[in-house]
Amino acid sequence: MKRTSNKKQIIVPGFKFSGIKSGIKESGGKDLALIYSETPAVTAGVFTTNSIKAAPVKLALKKITSNKGQAIIINSGNANACTGKQGDKDAKKVNTDLAKKLGLPIEMVYVSSTGIIGRPLPVTMITNALPELIDDLSPLSMDKAASAIMTTDTFPKFVSKRIKIDGKTGTIAGIAKGAGMIRPDMATMLCFLFTDIAVSAKPLDSALRKAVNMSLNRLTVDNETSTNDTAMLMSNGRLGNTPLTKNSPYYKKFTDALSDVTYQLSRMIAEDGEGATKIIEVTVKGARSESDAEKAASAIANSMLVKTAVYGKDPNWGRVISAAGASGAKLVENKIDIFFNKVKLVSNGVGTGMEKAAAALLDSKAITITVDLGAGKQSAKVLTCDLTEKYIEINAHYTT
Amino acid sequence: MKRTSNKKQIIVPGFKFSGIKSGIKESGGKDLALIYSETPAVTAGVFTTNSIKAAPVKLALKKITSNKGQAIIINSGNANACTGKQGDKDAKKVNTDLAKKLGLPIEMVYVSSTGIIGRPLPVTMITNALPELIDDLSPLSMDKAASAIMTTDTFPKFVSKRIKIDGKTGTIAGIAKGAGMIRPDMATMLCFLFTDIAVSAKPLDSALRKAVNMSLNRLTVDNETSTNDTAMLMSNGRLGNTPLTKNSPYYKKFTDALSDVTYQLSRMIAEDGEGATKIIEVTVKGARSESDAEKAASAIANSMLVKTAVYGKDPNWGRVISAAGASGAKLVENKIDIFFNKVKLVSNGVGTGMEKAAAALLDSKAITITVDLGAGKQSAKVLTCDLTEKYIEINAHYTT
Repeated sequence: MKRTSNKKQIIVPGFKFSGIKSGIKESGGKDLALIYSETPAVTAGVFTTNSIKAAPVKLALKKITSNKGQAIIINSGNANACTGKQGDKDAKKVNTDLAKKLGLPIEMVYVSSTGIIGRPLPVTMITNALPELIDDLSPLSMDKAASAIMTTDTFPKFVSKRIKIDGKTGTIAGIAKGAGMIRPDMATMLCFLFTDIAVSAKPLDSALRKAVNMSLNRLTVDNETSTNDTAMLMSNGRLGNTPLTKNSPYYKKFTDALSDVTYQLSRMIAEDGEGATKIIEVTVKGARSESDAEKAASAIANSMLVKTAVYGKDPNWGRVISAAGASGAKLVENKIDIFFNKVKLVSNGVGTGMEKAAAALLDSKAITITVDLGAGKQSAKVLTCDLTEKYIEINAHYTT
Repeated sequence: MKRTSNKKQIIVPGFKFSGIKSGIKESGGKDLALIYSETPAVTAGVFTTNSIKAAPVKLALKKITSNKGQAIIINSGNANACTGKQGDKDAKKVNTDLAKKLGLPIEMVYVSSTGIIGRPLPVTMITNALPELIDDLSPLSMDKAASAIMTTDTFPKFVSKRIKIDGKTGTIAGIAKGAGMIRPDMATMLCFLFTDIAVSAKPLDSALRKAVNMSLNRLTVDNETSTNDTAMLMSNGRLGNTPLTKNSPYYKKFTDALSDVTYQLSRMIAEDGEGATKIIEVTVKGARSESDAEKAASAIANSMLVKTAVYGKDPNWGRVISAAGASGAKLVENKIDIFFNKVKLVSNGVGTGMEKAAAALLDSKAITITVDLGAGKQSAKVLTCDLTEKYIEINAHYTT
C-alpha cells in the first residue's frame, strides 16, 4: 500500500534530526540517520529476542543499563549482523568517531543498523559522512531521519502526539521502519521515540515495555524475528515538568499516549508490509487468558491461508477457525463466533451463510477479523497484512 | 512440481481399493475412495491435534480404541468440519450405510473427509454412490483410491515396500494426500497404510506413531494444521506370520520399512506443496537436544523468507541463521556452520563468501539446507518446499 505519513512538521523541543545518503545503499537512497538530543536524555531500550544479535544490538544492550543517552546513529542497507569480531569493532568505530565529533562521552551514543545480514559494514562510508550528517541536524528533519532508516518500506513512518502535563503541552513522537521480517518480538523493526516530557529512568523503561508489548510486539508481517530489532525512547525533560514516576498523576496519561504513538506506528508498518494491499486487525475475545487470546490472534494473523484469503477477498472463516484451533488456545467449538468486519460468519461454531455480504466488504483497505473463543473473558489484538504475489516477488528476487 | 507416482501396480494381499466420482467436487474429479480388507484387520490411527476436529475425526477417535477395522471410506471436496450436530449425523449416516452394504458391523468401518470447511456434507451423493464404489473394488486399484482423495494435489501419491519376515515376503504400502495446510501435526494430510504382515495391536500403534513422528510430523508446507488430519494403518495378517510384538526379531525391520514408506510419502507431499518448484530438506545438527534440533529445523522450514529465497535461487543464509536464532533453540553463534547443498556458506558464524557457488546449485529440484548449531550432538530433519507466487494464486482465488 503506497501512502505517505502525516506530512505536517513535527518538533519535539530539544531534539534534532538528520538523514542523508552515505553510499551504503546500492539504490543511492538515504541510508544514514542521526537523532540528537541537545541535553542528556533519560533513555530506555528494548531489543530483539533473537539469539543471533547484530553487533550494534550487542553494544546497545551494554550501554542501555545506564539509562542515559544523547545521540543515536542508524544506518540502513547493512545489518552488521553475523559479521563476527570485525562487526563488533565496526560498530564501536562508528560509535567512537561520532562521539568524538559531537563532543560526547562514548557511552551517550548508540549505534543501530538494518539491512542485509552477513556483509561487512562499510565503516569508512559512514565515518566519512559524519560531518555532513551532523551539519544537517535540524529540529525540522524528523521526516528525513524516518526516510533514511527505510529498507523495503515504501513510505517514511513518523507520528506525534501532544498531551498536557501539569498545565504545559508536551510532545511524544517517533519514527519507525518495518516492511519485512516483522512479527511479535520486533522483527527487523526499528522504532525511535522522543519526548520532552521528563520521566524518571525506571518508569520510562516500564512505559516503553508496556507500549511495545501492546503494539510492536503484536504486529506480524511474516512471522520472522530479526537480528536487529530495536525500540528506544529518549526523554530530555525540556518541558520542565517534575519527572514522572509511577505514582505521578500524569504517568498513566503519558503511557497511554506513548502506547498510542507506538500503535499508530505499528499500523503504518502493517499497512506497509511487503507487497501488502490490506491491513488486517485480528481481535480474539472470549479467551480463558490474555496469553490464550494472543496465541490465537497470532496464529490467525500468521496464517498464510488467512492472509491469502483476505487478499483474494474470500471470507474463508474455515481457515480462521482452523488456525485458532491449532493455536493451542482453549476454545469451545459450539460457542465460537467469527466476524469479518461487521458480518457474522460463524455463530456457535457453525457457518451463518453470510459469505456474500462479508465478501462485498473485503474490498476495503482495512479489514477486521474478530473471533470469540467462547472460553472466557480475556482478549487481545494483533495487526497484520495480507499476503500477495508481490511479497514473493520482493523476497524471492532481492537479497535483503 | 508435476510428476507421477511410481506407476507399477501394487498389490497388498487381502486388500481391495476403489476410487470413483460421486459429484461432490465441482471440478467433476474423483472424490470418493474405499479401502477394504477381506478379513478384519488390526488397525491403528493418529489424528489431528487441532482443537477443532472434523466430524469424521471425532467418530474415528471413538472407534480406534478397539484397534480393529475392515473398511475406510474417504471423500474429498468437503471436510465435514465445523458443521455442528448435522455434521456428526452425516458422518454416522455414511458409516451406517456403508457397513450395511458391506455386511459389516458399524464399528469396523471408518469415515474420513477432506476439502472445504464449514459446508454441509452432501450425504445423499455419497450414499447413492456406494453401490458403484463397492462394485469397483479391486486389488489393483490402489492408484484410483489415491486419486480420489486428492484436493489441490497435482499427482496421486502411493508407495510400497516389500520385506522378508520369517522367510516370507510381506508388503507395506500406503496412499496419501497433502498439498496445502501441511505442517507437523499432520495438517490436511491424509495417509492410509496397509500391510499383510501380522502385527499385534499395541506394537502396530507404536510403529505407526514412530513412523508418523519421523516423517509426516516433520513436514511443513505452510505451517497450518488442519481439522481433518489422519494417518491410519491396517494389518490383515494375510502373510500368515506369527503376529509381531515389540520383542519379535522382525519388529525393528517392520518399523523401519513402515517409516521408509511414510517418509517417501512425505517427500511426495512436500514435492507437491501448493505452487512448489523445489523440495527442501532442512537438517539441523549440533543441537543440545533432539527437540531443540526439531525446533530450529521447523523454524527454518517454516520461514517464508527462507522459502522465497530458495525459490529465487538466492543462497540467503542470513535468513536461515535469523530463523534459527529466533527459534528458541540453544546455539553458539561463533560455532554455527551453514551449508546449502554441499556448499559451506557460514563457518563459525561468519560468511565464507561462497554465494556464487551455492547459487549455481539452487537450480536443482531437491535442495538441502544443513545447519550445525554448535551446541551439542543431536539432530533432526524437516521437509518443506519453496514458496512461490503460485501458492498465493491457489490460495487467494479458490475457496479450499
